[in-house]
Amino acid sequence: MENSKVKIGVLGASGYTGSDLVRLAARHPNIEISVLTANAHAGKPMAQVFPHLGHSLLPDLIKIDDADWGQMDAVFCGLPHGTTQDITRSLTDSHPDAKIIDMSADFRLRNTKTYGEWYGIEHRATELQTKAIYGLTEHYRDEIKNAGLVACPGCYPTAVLMALLPVVSSGLVDAGDLVIDAKSGVSGAGRAAKEATHFCESGEGLSPYAIGSHRHAPEIEQEISVAAGSDVVVNFTPHLIPMSRGELCTCYVRLTGQATANDLRTALAERYRDEPFVRVLESGVIPATQHVRGSNHVLIGVFEDRISGRAIIISALDNLVKGSAGQALQNFNLIFGYAETTGLEQLPLFP
Amino acid sequence: MENSKVKIGVLGASGYTGSDLVRLAARHPNIEISVLTANAHAGKPMAQVFPHLGHSLLPDLIKIDDADWGQMDAVFCGLPHGTTQDITRSLTDSHPDAKIIDMSADFRLRNTKTYGEWYGIEHRATELQTKAIYGLTEHYRDEIKNAGLVACPGCYPTAVLMALLPVVSSGLVDAGDLVIDAKSGVSGAGRAAKEATHFCESGEGLSPYAIGSHRHAPEIEQEISVAAGSDVVVNFTPHLIPMSRGELCTCYVRLTGQATANDLRTALAERYRDEPFVRVLESGVIPATQHVRGSNHVLIGVFEDRISGRAIIISALDNLVKGSAGQALQNFNLIFGYAETTGLEQLPLFP
Amino acid sequence: MENSKVKIGVLGASGYTGSDLVRLAARHPNIEISVLTANAHAGKPMAQVFPHLGHSLLPDLIKIDDADWGQMDAVFCGLPHGTTQDITRSLTDSHPDAKIIDMSADFRLRNTKTYGEWYGIEHRATELQTKAIYGLTEHYRDEIKNAGLVACPGCYPTAVLMALLPVVSSGLVDAGDLVIDAKSGVSGAGRAAKEATHFCESGEGLSPYAIGSHRHAPEIEQEISVAAGSDVVVNFTPHLIPMSRGELCTCYVRLTGQATANDLRTALAERYRDEPFVRVLESGVIPATQHVRGSNHVLIGVFEDRISGRAIIISALDNLVKGSAGQALQNFNLIFGYAETTGLEQLPLFP
Amino acid sequence: MENSKVKIGVLGASGYTGSDLVRLAARHPNIEISVLTANAHAGKPMAQVFPHLGHSLLPDLIKIDDADWGQMDAVFCGLPHGTTQDITRSLTDSHPDAKIIDMSADFRLRNTKTYGEWYGIEHRATELQTKAIYGLTEHYRDEIKNAGLVACPGCYPTAVLMALLPVVSSGLVDAGDLVIDAKSGVSGAGRAAKEATHFCESGEGLSPYAIGSHRHAPEIEQEISVAAGSDVVVNFTPHLIPMSRGELCTCYVRLTGQATANDLRTALAERYRDEPFVRVLESGVIPATQHVRGSNHVLIGVFEDRISGRAIIISALDNLVKGSAGQALQNFNLIFGYAETTGLEQLPLFP
Repeated sequence: MENSKVKIGVLGASGYTGSDLVRLAARHPNIEISVLTANAHAGKPMAQVFPHLGHSLLPDLIKIDDADWGQMDAVFCGLPHGTTQDITRSLTDSHPDAKIIDMSADFRLRNTKTYGEWYGIEHRATELQTKAIYGLTEHYRDEIKNAGLVACPGCYPTAVLMALLPVVSSGLVDAGDLVIDAKSGVSGAGRAAKEATHFCESGEGLSPYAIGSHRHAPEIEQEISVAAGSDVVVNFTPHLIPMSRGELCTCYVRLTGQATANDLRTALAERYRDEPFVRVLESGVIPATQHVRGSNHVLIGVFEDRISGRAIIISALDNLVKGSAGQALQNFNLIFGYAETTGLEQLPLFP
Repeated sequence: MENSKVKIGVLGASGYTGSDLVRLAARHPNIEISVLTANAHAGKPMAQVFPHLGHSLLPDLIKIDDADWGQMDAVFCGLPHGTTQDITRSLTDSHPDAKIIDMSADFRLRNTKTYGEWYGIEHRATELQTKAIYGLTEHYRDEIKNAGLVACPGCYPTAVLMALLPVVSSGLVDAGDLVIDAKSGVSGAGRAAKEATHFCESGEGLSPYAIGSHRHAPEIEQEISVAAGSDVVVNFTPHLIPMSRGELCTCYVRLTGQATANDLRTALAERYRDEPFVRVLESGVIPATQHVRGSNHVLIGVFEDRISGRAIIISALDNLVKGSAGQALQNFNLIFGYAETTGLEQLPLFP
Repeated sequence: MENSKVKIGVLGASGYTGSDLVRLAARHPNIEISVLTANAHAGKPMAQVFPHLGHSLLPDLIKIDDADWGQMDAVFCGLPHGTTQDITRSLTDSHPDAKIIDMSADFRLRNTKTYGEWYGIEHRATELQTKAIYGLTEHYRDEIKNAGLVACPGCYPTAVLMALLPVVSSGLVDAGDLVIDAKSGVSGAGRAAKEATHFCESGEGLSPYAIGSHRHAPEIEQEISVAAGSDVVVNFTPHLIPMSRGELCTCYVRLTGQATANDLRTALAERYRDEPFVRVLESGVIPATQHVRGSNHVLIGVFEDRISGRAIIISALDNLVKGSAGQALQNFNLIFGYAETTGLEQLPLFP
Repeated sequence: MENSKVKIGVLGASGYTGSDLVRLAARHPNIEISVLTANAHAGKPMAQVFPHLGHSLLPDLIKIDDADWGQMDAVFCGLPHGTTQDITRSLTDSHPDAKIIDMSADFRLRNTKTYGEWYGIEHRATELQTKAIYGLTEHYRDEIKNAGLVACPGCYPTAVLMALLPVVSSGLVDAGDLVIDAKSGVSGAGRAAKEATHFCESGEGLSPYAIGSHRHAPEIEQEISVAAGSDVVVNFTPHLIPMSRGELCTCYVRLTGQATANDLRTALAERYRDEPFVRVLESGVIPATQHVRGSNHVLIGVFEDRISGRAIIISALDNLVKGSAGQALQNFNLIFGYAETTGLEQLPLFP
């Protein structure tokens, strides 16, 4: 029934995150997409910017300043970091009932000073930051349900935290010795044309990047620290892989006491037993990004290390879905009282 | 309502065609997947053979001989050519009410002699062939509705015929001068391990194959001949492209009389105006396989040739969906009276 | 011996064409690379712009205005079209003995009016154009030997003309009915970051582009017209393929008289019998870009068409080597009297 | 001079390792390729099995039993493990002067019991094992010069050991806490058709494999143990990356005493200062496999870890060249007294 639909706006609809939100939302039975903004493409039909969406009836792109906030019960922000804080405050002031689901980095770090250090700009909405809920659904479900502002995690933090939070909080691994070797597809770098994302530069080869300096590190550390009950620093080393979608994090951990790899697997399996999107794999089954492509799924595998007293936890997800737009929609469902899987039932596309 | 569901079996569920049918059918609200067969993998859970389907509750794989035909209202065949005729007769004899939707090549050629020549084996169910309906949905819709046996077209024929049938049947192009340069992703070659589909052999390069000898040629010629009203021979030259999914056919045609490229576009647009899966693109918009990936969509574009009196028609689709499993499901919907788009609403996955 | 070396400059060394010339020239026993220019990167070591060249001792990049023409016996121009004419005149005026080997499009079209129409700018060195030799080595060898200015062909024209010139000039095919379906890797679009060459846009899919409007069409037509002895218009439809290097042209031709595909193969094989870089393949052997990658080789195959009186000629080469830098170096060898294969002996890199 | 050439045989010339050896050796000025064996392809021209080598004059493939050992001064073995020991003994017995350069795993492990455990077959030439020299050129140069049997390292061990040996032997890092996250292109899995190397299975995604059980682990541990002076167990976790060639190892190390990342870089730079194929990168420069493709180069970078007291060492190479055939040829040069770079001067192919 038309009346039962929630009107949404997508700010920054010309990026990969925004367009994937549109792809998913267009199939959500309780969503009406009423506003799409993209300043550089304002005036164009969405299908001109993203031809794969040409089969859907969608509003044309408009400038963010031309958006009628009154038309939106919920706003998904897919804007670059640094631009979302002002917009969020403006929106919150004028339409306090609108729910804001932010896919940018602007409200992920509770410590606004840390935000300033890593993003090179002062936080401009510190009072909103205190109300923002970190949108890692499986770990902040209750808080998200009542949130007005959800800060969806980065793609890497989602993959890493899904794998590590349960074993850190249960004390099975040493939070001070976490080595995270992360691999991402090229879509994680966004749609803007850059030499690094040129087919000929990123194809047929791989390279690490932002070693020791990736902005997802403080976000990971924030949440691991909460789970550990003390300040934690982690190794986080991302690599660019010649594929469009997908993210896989290989986490090397030191076991505490007599804990074994099996104990980790058991703890993870119990923690996620009822989660519709998470699958903790049986012993010997290896996660691969091919098996989550296009879906909101997370795969987690646990393996023994050859070094005694160590283990390996591996997680895989689609960086644009569970790592961004899918998790945002999952949070939307929570807030508006829909089944959490609504609009996210799509199975992975393989091959 | 459980009672309202149609029970289906998928024969040959361990191939790409079979698994893509399962991916789609698992989301179809009126389908219950009751049987999955794969002789080489009998006894295994489907998720072991296709980990991307691990989130779905599916029956284990069984041998085809162990299948209980009584459990199936409809049977999708994804078996290799040459094996489907016997099975179909056996099934038809014992369960005449079951609907058979064949994705193999075994019933596509109405002339069983031609079948024998191209497939190197005698047709073993010639009496069934006379009842088989060629499952190019948009062109055989009425016949399919009442069919007991549907022979879904090959992926290339689907792409080519969608582009050419309307302009051949309307006499706008010369049926005797059709040059079809076809390009397919590697999944078209099936999942069986072959040197030609090795990542290192098919990646980072392209090559033509089966030049002048591809088995989809007689199928294309059969349907073009019907449209032209006379026997037609076409050029059909396939190329293997380093991508998993997708098919694009560049058709070089000679215009008749005073016909123009615009006339072709208009004819196609009118012919497909009400088709939910077909989009005839505006002048200047170019089809690409990236924009149909994972969907049942077909994109068609028409372009002027530099050579006077000629034009170019280009079609793009996903070889495993509209080119196989998706069209099979579309035909299922027709037969069982569901909206034709049921279970096929998924938008393309891009990037 | 150091004294015996020819000093060269490479203008526009920060593009793929320029860097591939450097890759090859660095191994040429008779070349000393004395100047590398790249305005946007002036002052940087070449290895910073192209890390793969870090093992070679190369001069730093400088601005073109800072280049000392006196240091160069030969100049390779890898500049964008439209910028080369002025530079060439300036160089010719001040250093009339320097040999200029141009890899841009600025001197390829003998009719400067055609140049203006296709490139949108007036030709600014018409008097030099009359002296420029079209650098398709195997077809203009004698002229190139004595040339002061060589206009190396575009990548597509090289592939197409190698396949078609001998059969057009011998009258075996109808020059008025040439349909050329061309496929290129992404490096053909250059290194500049563009949305179209983003890994996520050009990967895992293919699309035609510049249909009927590609600037290589007039160049192809110019040379085909010479061979045919009359003005010819061709169909030329390029496609972007998800690979970095490689180019394959599938040429659909109409045979004249009683000519057969075998006749075409024989004519090509005879024409190229003594050519060190060209291999006309035996009947049934199919060219693939994987088999020429990184080399100066050209593969040509001839196939029967299913349509009577037609045939298919297919050529494959590496667009950056035989399609650009390699052919430029081949021409350099001709001019300076070295064996034509010098510095070009590298075998294809496969896989 | 023809007389000055060394006659070589390549056993197992139909694999990627064997064919890359042929690619390189065909350009070596002092090599005459006199024998190529490949049992499954015996009787075929090499160009039929590897069309990219069609421009070279090569002997046809023969069965290994038909090889005339007297024709070979040196034998390169690219056979599967388990088959090389018998052949080597037979060859050594009949032609004790022939030099054997083995690219298989059959003589890499000095402890033949360890060989048996990891390869599942008893070592059948233990007396030859004692004479075999581990062919990591930069670390066993003197021994290799006089060797009759060189066991070239695996691709992963080459990448790992080049990065770690100098810092382990100097005591700068804790040999008991080495975490090696390794990434390889698909060619590392060989040319035999397997589901795992199918383009559609290994493309557009990545997956770890052989976690904690890869046969290169004991080889790495053998050499690290020598450098450390005590038995060492390492973490070694390989990942399959969607690219044909290339290998990158991200090594996470714990620093000893007051050692810093800079100390590691300095130690590596000094150790490899005069090595023609090794480049220790300046601070901040990141290795990538794209920049070594097709060459015998090794790139090594050192980076600070966010965790205090830890660092990251990253190495990149081409698994088929420095990781196999290139290093084999480098060892050949040492043995026969040629400059170590002979035949290996080829620069990386980028893009």
